[in-house]
Amino acid sequence: MSPKITTELLKQLRQVMKNPKYVQEPVQAYIVPSGDAHQSEYIAPCDCRRAFISGFDGSAGTAIVTEQHAAMWTDGRYFLQAAHQMDNNWTLMKMGLKDTPTQEDWLVSVLPEGSKVGVDPFIIPADQWKRMSKALRSAGHDLVPVKENLIDTIWTDCPQRPCKPLITLDLSYTGVSWRDKIVALRSKMAERKVMWFVVTALDEVAWLFNLRGSDVEYNPVFFAYAVIGMNTIRLFIDGDRMMDPPVREHLQLDSTLEPEFKIQVMPYGSILSELQAVGAGLSPKEKVWLSDKASYALTEAIPKAYRYLTPYTPICIAKAVKNAAETEGMRRAHIKDAVALCELFNWLEKEVPKGTVTEIIAADKAEEFRSQQKDFVELSFATISSTGPNGAIIHYKPVPETNRTLSVNEIYLLDSGAQYKDGTTDVTRTMHFGTPSAYEKECFTYVLKGHIAVSAAIFPNGTKGHLLDSFARSALWDCGLDYLHGTGHGVGSFLNVHEGPCGISYKTFADEPLEAGMIVSDEPGYYEDGSFGIRIENVVLVIPAETKYNFKNRGSLTFEPLTLVPIQTKMIDVNLLTEKECNWVNEYHQKCREVVGAELERQGRHEALRWLLRETEPLARVQ
Amino acid sequence: MSPKITTELLKQLRQVMKNPKYVQEPVQAYIVPSGDAHQSEYIAPCDCRRAFISGFDGSAGTAIVTEQHAAMWTDGRYFLQAAHQMDNNWTLMKMGLKDTPTQEDWLVSVLPEGSKVGVDPFIIPADQWKRMSKALRSAGHDLVPVKENLIDTIWTDCPQRPCKPLITLDLSYTGVSWRDKIVALRSKMAERKVMWFVVTALDEVAWLFNLRGSDVEYNPVFFAYAVIGMNTIRLFIDGDRMMDPPVREHLQLDSTLEPEFKIQVMPYGSILSELQAVGAGLSPKEKVWLSDKASYALTEAIPKAYRYLTPYTPICIAKAVKNAAETEGMRRAHIKDAVALCELFNWLEKEVPKGTVTEIIAADKAEEFRSQQKDFVELSFATISSTGPNGAIIHYKPVPETNRTLSVNEIYLLDSGAQYKDGTTDVTRTMHFGTPSAYEKECFTYVLKGHIAVSAAIFPNGTKGHLLDSFARSALWDCGLDYLHGTGHGVGSFLNVHEGPCGISYKTFADEPLEAGMIVSDEPGYYEDGSFGIRIENVVLVIPAETKYNFKNRGSLTFEPLTLVPIQTKMIDVNLLTEKECNWVNEYHQKCREVVGAELERQGRHEALRWLLRETEPLARVQ
Repeated sequence: MSPKITTELLKQLRQVMKNPKYVQEPVQAYIVPSGDAHQSEYIAPCDCRRAFISGFDGSAGTAIVTEQHAAMWTDGRYFLQAAHQMDNNWTLMKMGLKDTPTQEDWLVSVLPEGSKVGVDPFIIPADQWKRMSKALRSAGHDLVPVKENLIDTIWTDCPQRPCKPLITLDLSYTGVSWRDKIVALRSKMAERKVMWFVVTALDEVAWLFNLRGSDVEYNPVFFAYAVIGMNTIRLFIDGDRMMDPPVREHLQLDSTLEPEFKIQVMPYGSILSELQAVGAGLSPKEKVWLSDKASYALTEAIPKAYRYLTPYTPICIAKAVKNAAETEGMRRAHIKDAVALCELFNWLEKEVPKGTVTEIIAADKAEEFRSQQKDFVELSFATISSTGPNGAIIHYKPVPETNRTLSVNEIYLLDSGAQYKDGTTDVTRTMHFGTPSAYEKECFTYVLKGHIAVSAAIFPNGTKGHLLDSFARSALWDCGLDYLHGTGHGVGSFLNVHEGPCGISYKTFADEPLEAGMIVSDEPGYYEDGSFGIRIENVVLVIPAETKYNFKNRGSLTFEPLTLVPIQTKMIDVNLLTEKECNWVNEYHQKCREVVGAELERQGRHEALRWLLRETEPLARVQ
Repeated sequence: MSPKITTELLKQLRQVMKNPKYVQEPVQAYIVPSGDAHQSEYIAPCDCRRAFISGFDGSAGTAIVTEQHAAMWTDGRYFLQAAHQMDNNWTLMKMGLKDTPTQEDWLVSVLPEGSKVGVDPFIIPADQWKRMSKALRSAGHDLVPVKENLIDTIWTDCPQRPCKPLITLDLSYTGVSWRDKIVALRSKMAERKVMWFVVTALDEVAWLFNLRGSDVEYNPVFFAYAVIGMNTIRLFIDGDRMMDPPVREHLQLDSTLEPEFKIQVMPYGSILSELQAVGAGLSPKEKVWLSDKASYALTEAIPKAYRYLTPYTPICIAKAVKNAAETEGMRRAHIKDAVALCELFNWLEKEVPKGTVTEIIAADKAEEFRSQQKDFVELSFATISSTGPNGAIIHYKPVPETNRTLSVNEIYLLDSGAQYKDGTTDVTRTMHFGTPSAYEKECFTYVLKGHIAVSAAIFPNGTKGHLLDSFARSALWDCGLDYLHGTGHGVGSFLNVHEGPCGISYKTFADEPLEAGMIVSDEPGYYEDGSFGIRIENVVLVIPAETKYNFKNRGSLTFEPLTLVPIQTKMIDVNLLTEKECNWVNEYHQKCREVVGAELERQGRHEALRWLLRETEPLARVQ
């Protein structure tokens, strides 16, 4: 990996930073955030502006360029990668280290008095703008919106914004029609006395209209905004994809409809002016509901007194609670996914000893097996296929430079998932194709104990996921071990593999309470730098739990694993498990046998079925 | 309990609300918060203004009086009590219920346009002022500071502000001299580039100067402020108590000292004008450090640009980490406290069957036994002595109207503690003097499992206490049970029984990480309305833990119980305990025998010693 040479690019950027064609007054600093105009986690190539200007293409990072300096803030996952990918023009700001200045503090320390700091108001979320603007103002500087994105002005070969065809999802997948979703949304709006709701997150637009796209890799979304009034629906979307007859029919664009369900289709680029028009026409007490993470540009379109901002939108919360059709779809998707992984692991077991399987080959093979399954669309994220020391790099993705060959001497960690038309999967298994050491088994077993502690946890209705995080760590903590990531994230239903508003992490506090129908991952791990990584991840569904008593009539919840892939028993030190934990493993494997076994049988995959049966032999504890 | 008749008082208050002698312009509403000028949890009688105006004397509640209405906001602990104590002039606002308006929303709904809402700027914390002022302003009203407290103007028989003699603590108690504490504070100030630090919390003043008082019941504090500069020390305190020779000597008031350690003693009431003078004399970049919970009046004395506000002050954080002298003092105090409780429980065991012991008698007896111990000062909070259904009232305090007689048929819960010159105690034990039912034992055992799960937890350095809260609930949750309070609070060293910045609760997130030397309580419970309450509370010290491995060299922590009072084995269903839990109980009891047994022996308390030995017989698990 050689760094990107950015001398010329930075020179060009610094020129446009004072070019009156683009800026009213010269800006002494320009901020290039990671995101797109929808605050997406995964972004399209045309939105990879920070990677373009710096060379650093990790998923998180903010670049700031001043007349003299260029600096990049990123977190511990990416220190090494950023250092490799950036040339000497760049200073790496290691977030989380004690001596690293915040972006605001750094700007204040390097800028001449009374400086202007520019940023694209469409990219920066309103809450971030507010924080940064306040800090700069108190030091005598100004944060200013620069309408034209300055990176785009120098990015001559910038790829086009994708505009791929849409997929319509019928009731058998979604359970609820888009009309009923609009009705429910409007009732939430009425509850809060809000007249308009602005949908800015791509997965929220997709969910609301029961449409999917492929504008962004791994995420079945499409570039669009929506503005929902009490009597109007405006969908801002480009391209002739709205000319597609199934889409027109799905959205009833050509039908005679009650006016409140008539969708007005408008150009993607007209959202700002339309929203400004909405803002200008508001009567007193007419509020507009936006996410507090919506872009500064869209938030500013609504006069402050009329804004109603919340961290989680009603769509985000409704989307998280899967209905029966979605849950059934997720179950089907996970069974198919398990079939693919049984095939893969059976194949790996035979091939790894030959010394011909690399991390990339294994990842490709996983994709091949998945693509054989019905309704497969694409992967749900870049496969983490890592062996030995690469396993300790939590967000590793094999590339030719780092590609290791799997062997019978090293632990192999595979974290992968797919988008099926009926659901999204995300599963991690850690395997040994030879004989694991006692220490490796010990660590694996602590991770497994943590996985079970969460999966089998019973907790009252109304409990937030972050309160369960320590359960996943307790066995590791007892021995002085830990892992430096959260335990779980929300998972979409044929949507983003990471979604809010719930999760299981010590880092969040503002998560919404878990409720029956929510789907999260359960993925504790243990990583030893330079030697191996262990992670055991299932996607689990929140379900009601039966308990002996029922305090204050609150009811209890627990989890049902949707992922049904064997956990390698060879890696388990059975003597470290309690009887309850041992039973959990055996019952889990029994379910894998029954459910996935039946599907393997149905698909005529007899060798993989034999592998499954071998791998799900019950554990026996020495009493 | 009959309600206080407030018709006349409210009439008087409404008159002064428009009396130009007290208000520049009439105020249409007046807020009466709970606290005092130091944001204390426990307050002196002269500060019980909310109780005076309303009759409601619970520990938490805010009264708001408008021309037409009088409303009281309080939380679930006090709904019943507030309803009993207030007459029909008052509307009870039940906080935490869905339909209860916030104070701001309610004000907006009842006030005429453009109203003024008054509040004593010395009583309202700055952060609360900010929130409330913003909400009112956005609705067209104004929050205004009313210098003279309007309650005080109508409270003709208001008690005097206490001004009791001070106790000086030498190095054997404090471990660090006040001079060294000032040096450490100034170094923290220098780190943050702050020139002044304003000490507003009473326990922080007491800790900093190694002084104690008795101005507030249960809390060994005294009314004072301090302002620490890099070269000056100002102590704002009233009364001839500063004339006391030991105090003068302790503070070296009459010695020739380096000027930076010379304490200037000033009148308590001059804090505002002195602070305003400091504020007026600041040069650019000279910041003043205040708690963000300091009063609005003091915060406003410093121009906004010069304020440095933090949720926890450096004194609060330093005070929480006990040094060796303090830890040893706390150990001694807890041994003495255990001696008193062994005497009490031995006495109760003999007396309860006679049917002559009431909750109040038991509480008084506990105080009597404690007062026999060396260096006893007073109780550390109002004793919760409750039997049967009274045990389910979490903050119960027996009064003649509710006083029940202890019997062999009901569970008895005693939550009590004391201030000794060497430390503060807080312990809860739940006992049965007859034969507990299987269900009572079952619930008790779940609570015990939770208590042990926290007490025996091993966790990495840097872990915040709120991450341990679920450990205390897990056994209860498994059966559908729970308790509606936090699991633990910080405990002062011969200081307030509740102190920040650490604790163990699902409710906080902004707590500081636990570190070795911190002291917290571990007190899960279970309460069944109308029948019984169970709580098991130890005060525990955070200590380093030895672990098999040491991830990232972070080190691990665990707890050592300071409280050494037997946990009634009669209440334990041994078959619900794991082997590890059973061993924990046996080892804990072994330590009680050794440590408290030796002290009982030394004090010649042979009958109580025999009780201790009986109560600490090892549990035997049926295999």
